[in-house]
Amino acid sequence: MKYYIGVDIGGTNVKAGVVDENAQLVAHVSLKTKAKDGYQSVLKTVKQAIEQATELSGEPIERIKTIGIGCPGSMDSEKGVVLYSNNLGWKNAPLAKDLSEYFTGKRIILENDANAAAYGEYLAGAAKGATNAVVLTLGTGVGAGVIINGEIYKGSNNAGGEIGHTVIEVDGAQCTCGRKGCFEAYASATGLVRMTDEMIEKYPTGRLHEMVDRDGKISARTAFNAAKLGDPEGMEVVSKYIKYLACGITNVINIFQPDILCIGGGVCNEGDNLLKPLKSLVAKEIYSKDSKKNTEIVICTLANEAGMIGSAMLGKK
Amino acid sequence: MKYYIGVDIGGTNVKAGVVDENAQLVAHVSLKTKAKDGYQSVLKTVKQAIEQATELSGEPIERIKTIGIGCPGSMDSEKGVVLYSNNLGWKNAPLAKDLSEYFTGKRIILENDANAAAYGEYLAGAAKGATNAVVLTLGTGVGAGVIINGEIYKGSNNAGGEIGHTVIEVDGAQCTCGRKGCFEAYASATGLVRMTDEMIEKYPTGRLHEMVDRDGKISARTAFNAAKLGDPEGMEVVSKYIKYLACGITNVINIFQPDILCIGGGVCNEGDNLLKPLKSLVAKEIYSKDSKKNTEIVICTLANEAGMIGSAMLGKK
Repeated sequence: MKYYIGVDIGGTNVKAGVVDENAQLVAHVSLKTKAKDGYQSVLKTVKQAIEQATELSGEPIERIKTIGIGCPGSMDSEKGVVLYSNNLGWKNAPLAKDLSEYFTGKRIILENDANAAAYGEYLAGAAKGATNAVVLTLGTGVGAGVIINGEIYKGSNNAGGEIGHTVIEVDGAQCTCGRKGCFEAYASATGLVRMTDEMIEKYPTGRLHEMVDRDGKISARTAFNAAKLGDPEGMEVVSKYIKYLACGITNVINIFQPDILCIGGGVCNEGDNLLKPLKSLVAKEIYSKDSKKNTEIVICTLANEAGMIGSAMLGKK
Repeated sequence: MKYYIGVDIGGTNVKAGVVDENAQLVAHVSLKTKAKDGYQSVLKTVKQAIEQATELSGEPIERIKTIGIGCPGSMDSEKGVVLYSNNLGWKNAPLAKDLSEYFTGKRIILENDANAAAYGEYLAGAAKGATNAVVLTLGTGVGAGVIINGEIYKGSNNAGGEIGHTVIEVDGAQCTCGRKGCFEAYASATGLVRMTDEMIEKYPTGRLHEMVDRDGKISARTAFNAAKLGDPEGMEVVSKYIKYLACGITNVINIFQPDILCIGGGVCNEGDNLLKPLKSLVAKEIYSKDSKKNTEIVICTLANEAGMIGSAMLGKK
């Protein structure tokens, strides 16, 4: 059996895992990223995480030939440089070089985190067996990874697949990317929180407000929880959120017609309360509604492991 | 030298051409489609066009092994059936079978017309030399063809690449596909005419109205012509049209990051009056604005020949 290391650098945690040649996670650890402490500090954490995961796995690190890294932001995979990562505050960080000086003789492979997670779901998760797949992660933003013919699609400059930054409402809500009305500004957990907040402003004495008062904050769960209790404003927010989510997902299907479209991220914990109305809206809207074969919409199955598995398996190629 | 036949079935004309192995059009003819007369009539026209083009080329038809057909609508390329073509009024038309009975021994290849045209531009036109390319045709609708790694991208059910039917304005203008706010509803010539019409309704005594009165109809040129004369309402329509066009094109670039994005269709006759402001808006909006390599936006060069060339060259593969 051959083994590969996969690292998933997130804004909160650095996860490192040892993955076998069948894309199964053998051992893994999670350390705090502490991105605020700067690049050198995070680099040290990444090294520690790799060493600890390897130790846990029982495999001698000499036997592991590659280290795959999933990292938020834009990468120059060939040069092994993180060009820009908004989340981590990095610009032109020579991550591959710095790691290969420490882990001598190992091949270091850099990939965007959403791409790595999509590749993980494709190899070992919800998209296993597909030829073409799209994986969307509904979190702080909307991460997206596109798999075409079993390969991560990166475009001609490694910056492709930014589905979160496609406008679905001209002059709509401000997005972090500078555009207005991006899919991400509506379909992310952040977008859902904003919609909830707007509803509370409109009905300041309603149940949504009560729930927020009790919980101490608005979360992506607030509106769904209120809706489950039959609260009309909660239901309206949920319905609006799902409408925008369905709009963007229909766009993705009309463009890619993948075998499968997987959605992940915290919002997906709502399960059928999210998935059922979403599927129903998409089925009505897609261009290929009369086609015999249409994209299946499912929830991701690897959760936090997808990034590690995907990053690791980049070394197998 | 080897030769291939390519047919482009449009709502107005059926064009057939003989194309050499270097993707050069050797001879071609154009006949009226007369789609209203029904499938059997159009089938007869297609046969005639193929025979006439072959005769013109001077090559004996026996030497030509394949006939590629670009046809509007959705295809089952494997079975050689046009599943549905709104423009032609066809449903489950067994085009490949019917043609191969007539042209015995020849391989008949069916492809969506926008895909065939994109493939033509990729092989012999504006997108020549690219690895990844997107071709958009701004006509009655917005046709789109996506080339990934030199191949037409069709998704998992031959229905991929419908970029025209991605919503850029939730609850926006009605699209022919049933959705509201599709890119096609804004960026097509039809969309431009609608915007011009709306402006005339708003300012019924302005220059736009005068021009329409003189020309006898509103066309996609009306607003551009008025804008050239400095008419403020004409300029407003042009500016709005280009804003929506830029929005959809930025979406496409954020997703595909192709080497090149080619736009074609009658609206592109406006040349730099369209292209310059379009490029400037896109450059400001794209996610990869700091990238060293970004998508080039150009106007298609093959005009009406792209479909024939692309369809023909499908036989070379």
